[in-house]
Parts: sequence; structure tokens; C-alpha cells
Amino acid sequence: MYTENAPPGRVAAALSIDERWMTLALDLAARGLGRTAPNPPVGCVIVRGHEVVGRGFHPRAGEPHAEVFALREAGAHARGATAYVTLEPCSHHGRTPPCTDALIASGVRRVVVSALDPNPRVAGRGVQVLRDAGIDVSVGISEAGATRQQAGFRSLIVRGRPWVVAKYAMTLDGKVAAVGEGNGSVSGAAARERTMVWRNELDAVAVGSGTLNMDDPALTTRGVPGGRDACAVVFDRQTRSNPQARAWRRGSVLVTAPDAAASAFEAAGVTVVRAATPLDALMQLGGLDISSVLLEGGPTLLSAFLDAGLVDDVRVFIAPKLLGGGLSPLTSPARRMHDAQALRDVSVETLGADVLVTGLLSDIPRL
Amino acid sequence: MYTENAPPGRVAAALSIDERWMTLALDLAARGLGRTAPNPPVGCVIVRGHEVVGRGFHPRAGEPHAEVFALREAGAHARGATAYVTLEPCSHHGRTPPCTDALIASGVRRVVVSALDPNPRVAGRGVQVLRDAGIDVSVGISEAGATRQQAGFRSLIVRGRPWVVAKYAMTLDGKVAAVGEGNGSVSGAAARERTMVWRNELDAVAVGSGTLNMDDPALTTRGVPGGRDACAVVFDRQTRSNPQARAWRRGSVLVTAPDAAASAFEAAGVTVVRAATPLDALMQLGGLDISSVLLEGGPTLLSAFLDAGLVDDVRVFIAPKLLGGGLSPLTSPARRMHDAQALRDVSVETLGADVLVTGLLSDIPRL
Repeated sequence: MYTENAPPGRVAAALSIDERWMTLALDLAARGLGRTAPNPPVGCVIVRGHEVVGRGFHPRAGEPHAEVFALREAGAHARGATAYVTLEPCSHHGRTPPCTDALIASGVRRVVVSALDPNPRVAGRGVQVLRDAGIDVSVGISEAGATRQQAGFRSLIVRGRPWVVAKYAMTLDGKVAAVGEGNGSVSGAAARERTMVWRNELDAVAVGSGTLNMDDPALTTRGVPGGRDACAVVFDRQTRSNPQARAWRRGSVLVTAPDAAASAFEAAGVTVVRAATPLDALMQLGGLDISSVLLEGGPTLLSAFLDAGLVDDVRVFIAPKLLGGGLSPLTSPARRMHDAQALRDVSVETLGADVLVTGLLSDIPRL
Repeated sequence: MYTENAPPGRVAAALSIDERWMTLALDLAARGLGRTAPNPPVGCVIVRGHEVVGRGFHPRAGEPHAEVFALREAGAHARGATAYVTLEPCSHHGRTPPCTDALIASGVRRVVVSALDPNPRVAGRGVQVLRDAGIDVSVGISEAGATRQQAGFRSLIVRGRPWVVAKYAMTLDGKVAAVGEGNGSVSGAAARERTMVWRNELDAVAVGSGTLNMDDPALTTRGVPGGRDACAVVFDRQTRSNPQARAWRRGSVLVTAPDAAASAFEAAGVTVVRAATPLDALMQLGGLDISSVLLEGGPTLLSAFLDAGLVDDVRVFIAPKLLGGGLSPLTSPARRMHDAQALRDVSVETLGADVLVTGLLSDIPRL
């Protein structure tokens, strides 16, 4: 359900009025990123004439949905208004009553929906219920942005496992670190700030045991107003991780081989996941309500996920400097150039002195 | 004498009237790129009021200078006009009489010069002669663009050796080729077209013997209207190159070790340069009136030049795909991240599906 982005470098087309209100709803929804799993981040704006009369977003699972907050703020002003919702309103009783009921009761005349809900309990039924009640419903406004924002939720619903983002910073000659050295200083401050934004928005941040032992990363979210720490996940088949590493805190996850001994970690409040394969690990992380994972390295971890076809989203900082020798970001077995995995929806951005290139793996399904 | 470019992503500031005419003169000068060595590419525009009355560029060594062509076209209209010249006019008798004499005789009222001539026989004297004749002279308009355009000439004059451009295309995980395979298919058609433009503009295009034997590149300029082939240079210390390779043509250069046997190549019309080091090789290429070299690979050649501090200019195509395993663009001995060589004057551009990042090595002197 992704639609293609404009080609890199092309100026974005002017937005329609519906798209502008939906952009506001998406901005609201973004405040819930990293907090709502297994629910989606959703935003809602109620507009009457040219005036916003209600705003809401889903803050976390168990709390009311975005529509409820927005309708509460709008009160009687909702009558005859248009509601913009970033995801199809739910029509079933979950932990909260159906949002379709609330929208119908409010008297809104029109509902604009960005993306349909892939949840089989909704899946178009929410739209149908609204239409049956005589409400004018438009679907698909700013859908590409919405489905991308909801990638974690959609992945969890459709595939039972988290959306996987591989992130690394390399020099212009493709090196992530000098041999035998940490990789902290490849990119600049703006790249580090962006990484913190991602840590705040994704449910988990993961490293391999090599990176853990080499760099001892805290894997915390720093410098983001209102930020919270993602779940720290360490992939370590043979339980070689330093038990004193900074990433270990209550709620951290150790992913290890099925037969590995990890009682010391369990005793320290670490959740231990025993998995035979990367896919098995991801399915179990999904079972822990982790809908998205930021893989921060190193090359061994990234290569294992790439080779298993489990990377969805790639975000690469390129620092304009040449190292000459050093570690490559991916160290998979050699393959032929025409077997390289292409990216789609590529974007290019300069961040301080660095360049950020992002894209999705071409062969992942549109969720 | 380079000035810093605007930061990547920043929109260029509006140009002054002088800068706009100088941009036209630089565009004219560009037509001589790759044809004028050991002379510089120079363009000249004569403007009277708001009208161009004369245009010229230096087409090749031995032919008249840009000012002469422009003044010829302007004729009597030059009187009272302004001449825009991309390089300080010569004040000495070389193969042609001094351009300062021609400008004074023409009656121009003002001369706008982009960059001073680093040639010690000129070096400000041209400007002084014009001022002594009562002409109003402005210097430094669009100087950064001019000195960059003249990099080959300036390098040859100041350092006795060509300007060295290292170019490669890599995947987003920093691979230039699968192991044991050619690198022809990393980037797309737009990147190949840009490479052809560079081959047309630089005096020489160089590869190492590994690339020659693996890929058998023709090293010709294809698809550029009015294009001409650069001098093909092959670095091959041990004379292991295939003598039947396509790059060998009359005027091609083989750079080999001082004691290597190369009589078969010499008999075929190939110029053989015997050099002990990369610097020695560059000095000898400078002696052959080669003012600029496009190093097109492979990793061994690029690393040898980078490690010797002989790369000035880096142009990297990044294809948005992941290979996993494969060859790195540079394979120097490992160094520490803080010893990485930074680039300045960095620019980022999207070219088809690929990203082009260019920059100059920070520690090269401003020529």
C-alpha cells in the first residue's frame, strides 16, 4: 500500500487541502510512535470550515484512541465537521469501544481516512460502517506517509514480527570503523541527533555482542524532548556479552541460542529470548509487543539479517571522508552485482556535513 | 584561492550582474576543457550596456586566447564596454602577443577578472598593466568556480603535476564490485553519462592493470556531442597488462616501473613512462602536458594515490542497493577513524537512481 515517493531531488508537489489536514493528523500521530505497540500510532483532526476544532492522538495501548480525544475537544463543534484520521477507525470492541460509533454519534458529516487497517477485524469494515450511517468517507489521502508511519503496527499484524530498520554510518569509501576500533566517530552531531529521534520512535534498538563488548553503547535516547528509551535488545548466540555493559537494564532483551546458559542475565531482570534463527528471534520479539527494531550494528548482525531477507528499511549516514582501510558495514559472503538488493522509495538528505540515504528493500511486500 | 561552497542543501544565493556575465564566460571557457593543456581553459564575454557584443574561449594551445576571439567579434563595439575574463589576461609574449595589449587597444572601459593567473610570468602583472592604462579592473568575481575549472592548469603551474580526480561507483554498503567480477553495473545510465562528460573534460583517464585485464575498458568518450577521447593511461608496474586491451591506442600511456620491459608497447605507439613512485609518475605525466587525470580504478590504484597524498578531488556515485560481500573502493592499510581524510567543498546530487557525492581533499593547498 506504499505509493512511490517523488524521485529524489524533485520538489514535492503542492498538497491538496485534504492532504494538508492529514499531514497535521500524521504529525499528531507521530507523538505516539514508540509508545503504542501493539496498537498503531494514530492521529485525528476535526475540521469545521477552515478551523480545527479537535485534535487527538493515541498515546499508548490501553488508553483511548485518537478519535476519542479529538471528538472530546470538538464537543458540539463536531456536528457537520470533517474528521481526518490517519488509520481506518476501528469498528470492533477491543480494549475500548468502536471509534465508528463515536464518530457517528458526534454528527460529523465527512471522514477522511489515510490508510485502511490491515487488521482482519477491521480491514474496510470501519469505512463500511461509517458509509452505512450516511457519512461521506474518503480513503487513501496521504496513504504512503501513513503506511510508512504505521510500518511497525502493519508488520506485526500482517507478518507477526517487527519492522526491521538497519542503520549504519560509513565513510565515503564504505568503512564503518577502523579495524579493532569503535564506530562512534564516523558521522557528526546532526546524524547522532537523528539517530536519537529514531530510537525514540522505534520500539527496540538492537546490537550484536561484538558491538556491545567493543563500544559498550548505552542504547538510550538522549537529547530528545519528552523522549523515552527504546527496549535494548542484544543478539548474542553464545552469551559472550559483558554482563556489566551499559545496555543491560530492567526490560532489556538478550537474544541467544536455544541451548545457551543465561541465568545470570535473567536474574538481573533481563528478558531472555532463545531463538534458533533471526526469523525465530523476530517472531518472539513480536510476541513481546515489539513492533519495530532499529539494528545499530555491527556488520555481523546486519549481514545476518540482510542475508535472511529480514531487513525492511535501510538508513545510512555517509560521512564525507576517506578512511582507506577498515570494516565494511556488511560482510556477507560475496554475491554477484546483479544479485544486489535494490532499494525503493529512496530519499537523500544532507545532515550537517553528512549525507543520509534511506530506502526500503525493494523485495519486501507493501504492508 | 578556492572559497567555500554553500553548505549542501542550501539554495544558492542570487547572483550579481557581474557574476551572471562571468558565469557565461565560464560556460564558454568550459568548451576548451580537456583541449588547452598546458594552457588554461579561458572564456571571455564583452558586454556593452546589457548586450553581449563579443564572446570567445581558448580552444587549444597554439590558437588565440579567449580575449582575442571576443574582441574580434565585438570590433568597434568594444569601445567603452566591459570585458569579463575567467582568468587574468596575459601580459607577456608567449605563443601569442599579450592580451592586455589587445584589451587596451580595443578601448574597453572596464575589465572584470575572475581569478589571478598563478603563472609567475603573470601573477597580477596583467591586472597592473590594465590599471596603468586607465582601465577599471575588478578581480575575484566567481573566483571559486573559476579556480575549480582551472584546477588542472593551476596544478600544472604550481605543482608541476596534474590535478588528480578519483572516481568510483559503489553500493550503499560500500562495495565497488563483487569479488572477481567487473564493476560495470554498479551505477546507472545517468552516472555513466556524467563519467563520459568528465572523460571529455579531463586530459587523461587512468586505470590500473588489474582493472584493465578484468574489465578491458575502452576508456573512450561516448555519447558526448563534440566529445574527444582523453589520453588513456595505464598504471602497471610489472607490465602485466594485456597488450590486446582496448585502451591501447596511439597516444596511450603505460606507466611502469623503471626497470620494466615494455618494448612491445612502445613498438605499438604507446608512450611508456618509467616511474619509481606515484609522484614521479604524475610529474612525468605533467611533462607530457597532461594537466588532469581521472583515476577510474581499481582499489589498488586509488589506494596507492590516496596513501601517497596525491588525490585532490573525489567523485563517488552511490547506488541505492546492498551487495553484502565484495570489493571495497579503497583497500589501504587500516588507519584510525580520526586519521580519516576529510573532504571540503562537498556537493551532493541525485543522478537517476544514484547519488553523486563530490569533494576536494581538505589538506590539499588552494591552488
